[in-house]
Amino acid sequence: MIQIQFAARSLRWAEYEAPLRAALDAHGLDYRMENYTQDASLPPESVDYIVYAPNSHLQDFTAYTRCKAVLNLWAGVEGITGNRTLTQPLARMVDHGLTQGMVEWVVGHAMRLHLGMDIHLNGQDGIWRRHVPPLAEDRPVTILGLGALGTACGTALAQLGFPVRGWSRSPKDVPGITCLSGPDGLAQALAGAGIVVLLLPLTDATENTLNAATLQHLAPGAFVLNPGRGPLIDDTALLAALDAGGVAQATLDVFREEPLPPDHPYWAHPNVTVTPHIASETRASSAAKVIAENIRRGEAGEPFLHLVNRDAGY
Amino acid sequence: MIQIQFAARSLRWAEYEAPLRAALDAHGLDYRMENYTQDASLPPESVDYIVYAPNSHLQDFTAYTRCKAVLNLWAGVEGITGNRTLTQPLARMVDHGLTQGMVEWVVGHAMRLHLGMDIHLNGQDGIWRRHVPPLAEDRPVTILGLGALGTACGTALAQLGFPVRGWSRSPKDVPGITCLSGPDGLAQALAGAGIVVLLLPLTDATENTLNAATLQHLAPGAFVLNPGRGPLIDDTALLAALDAGGVAQATLDVFREEPLPPDHPYWAHPNVTVTPHIASETRASSAAKVIAENIRRGEAGEPFLHLVNRDAGY
Repeated sequence: MIQIQFAARSLRWAEYEAPLRAALDAHGLDYRMENYTQDASLPPESVDYIVYAPNSHLQDFTAYTRCKAVLNLWAGVEGITGNRTLTQPLARMVDHGLTQGMVEWVVGHAMRLHLGMDIHLNGQDGIWRRHVPPLAEDRPVTILGLGALGTACGTALAQLGFPVRGWSRSPKDVPGITCLSGPDGLAQALAGAGIVVLLLPLTDATENTLNAATLQHLAPGAFVLNPGRGPLIDDTALLAALDAGGVAQATLDVFREEPLPPDHPYWAHPNVTVTPHIASETRASSAAKVIAENIRRGEAGEPFLHLVNRDAGY
Repeated sequence: MIQIQFAARSLRWAEYEAPLRAALDAHGLDYRMENYTQDASLPPESVDYIVYAPNSHLQDFTAYTRCKAVLNLWAGVEGITGNRTLTQPLARMVDHGLTQGMVEWVVGHAMRLHLGMDIHLNGQDGIWRRHVPPLAEDRPVTILGLGALGTACGTALAQLGFPVRGWSRSPKDVPGITCLSGPDGLAQALAGAGIVVLLLPLTDATENTLNAATLQHLAPGAFVLNPGRGPLIDDTALLAALDAGGVAQATLDVFREEPLPPDHPYWAHPNVTVTPHIASETRASSAAKVIAENIRRGEAGEPFLHLVNRDAGY
């Protein structure tokens, strides 16, 4: 019988238990699954798979000697890759609902800023303000990060008519997107961008990717969208660019500290929109299917999906 | 060097000069372009192309003996086809910017309402409001009208994941859209719609298509988008539905009277957004590309695009 240790905060167990059992049952797997608590945890040496959230109380993987894979419930793995006790294969979450939700947030806010919608939303005062925005084809978009999320968002924006460039650490080839890579490609990717979307993984190398120097490459009055990770942006540099007008608007969903403290200057800045980390939210029903598929693969001796490269940090 | 005579009202020169030069430069063309004024007009016998608006002061084409084409800035050519001095090839404007602009407005506002963006835009007060919207796949959209604009908007929304129904007077078949038609199909098209988009032509038969009876079919808390024509909606019925909550939000770009009078209840209603008839507008940038492409074709000996059949009158 497959032994599955679920290890996340207790709210997640309530949310995930039923969808996980349904997805595992759908594969006809014979398993025991328990939540990680003092009372119900499985003996570490018996566990085959750990379904995992990085903020779980389970932080020492040393005793999980026969564990075939740690299956992350989150797309982000920066809270776990530094854990030296974790030697087992680690898979990230690639959830259709998570990707779709991200595409919707990015397309929605990109269109809002592109159309200059706020002028009208804030101007329902009887004054007929004719302001015809440029077309999408005249507003170059740059996506930083061409993983599953960046690729999906870039593709959706390209389908809507935006010229889309994408930048990633290693070279990629995505239809409809001009792909650039490596440290040398970053300035070229950002040059003249009217909208920049941050969807990089958070690593030592990507922290503060948008900083005083790189912000200089954007088109004057550019828009910044960050649905990725808070520390990808040097907040001080962004606030300075917003004050100087080099960046016209920033719409931010992620922050170094969450919830964003009420006295953080982002809340009060007239050209910043804060959204409360909602761009991409894993939906339990679709995520459970991803977890169950990886367990089925592990049992069938097939390669796991979405494995993390621990050396690269993502 | 290619000699280009621009001949339109002076406001148009201010609007078009830079986009035209950018579009011509993008083709690497070597040209001289002047506005048609007493001071700056080119010698008629030297002109290769005339970029033209029918209300220009240039009305006698007799002396333009080597002119290869007259390139109209307007879609309509009824103001010029009767000019017997015009013997040169005449091309109309076919601006994809009209359709593209409509798609952008519809997608932008549909996403804004779908994501519940206004909660965050109006709530930059330090309170972390976690509100995760449903996915597009759970929000049915209905497009009333399946002409060029309705089809393009419906297709774009379907590509973003919305289930899309379309309704038109006569039967249509559009990939990715569930097509319904005729008076009997309207209730079926509207049943349970979470977003309805009005893009019907205005005729006696389509006036007040959205009225007290048809509004009943929508999903509770539906969103109404009208970028089509003002009289498609019974305004009294829509305001009543907004007050009762049956319709949660209406975003309207067109009205029976434009500009919308400052005392119209739509301006003051908390659940109505007025935009000033900007959903679809010829853009200088895209029109300039059409002109530049025809000049490129003329120089390359390729056939001109969008030539007018002078005998047929269009």
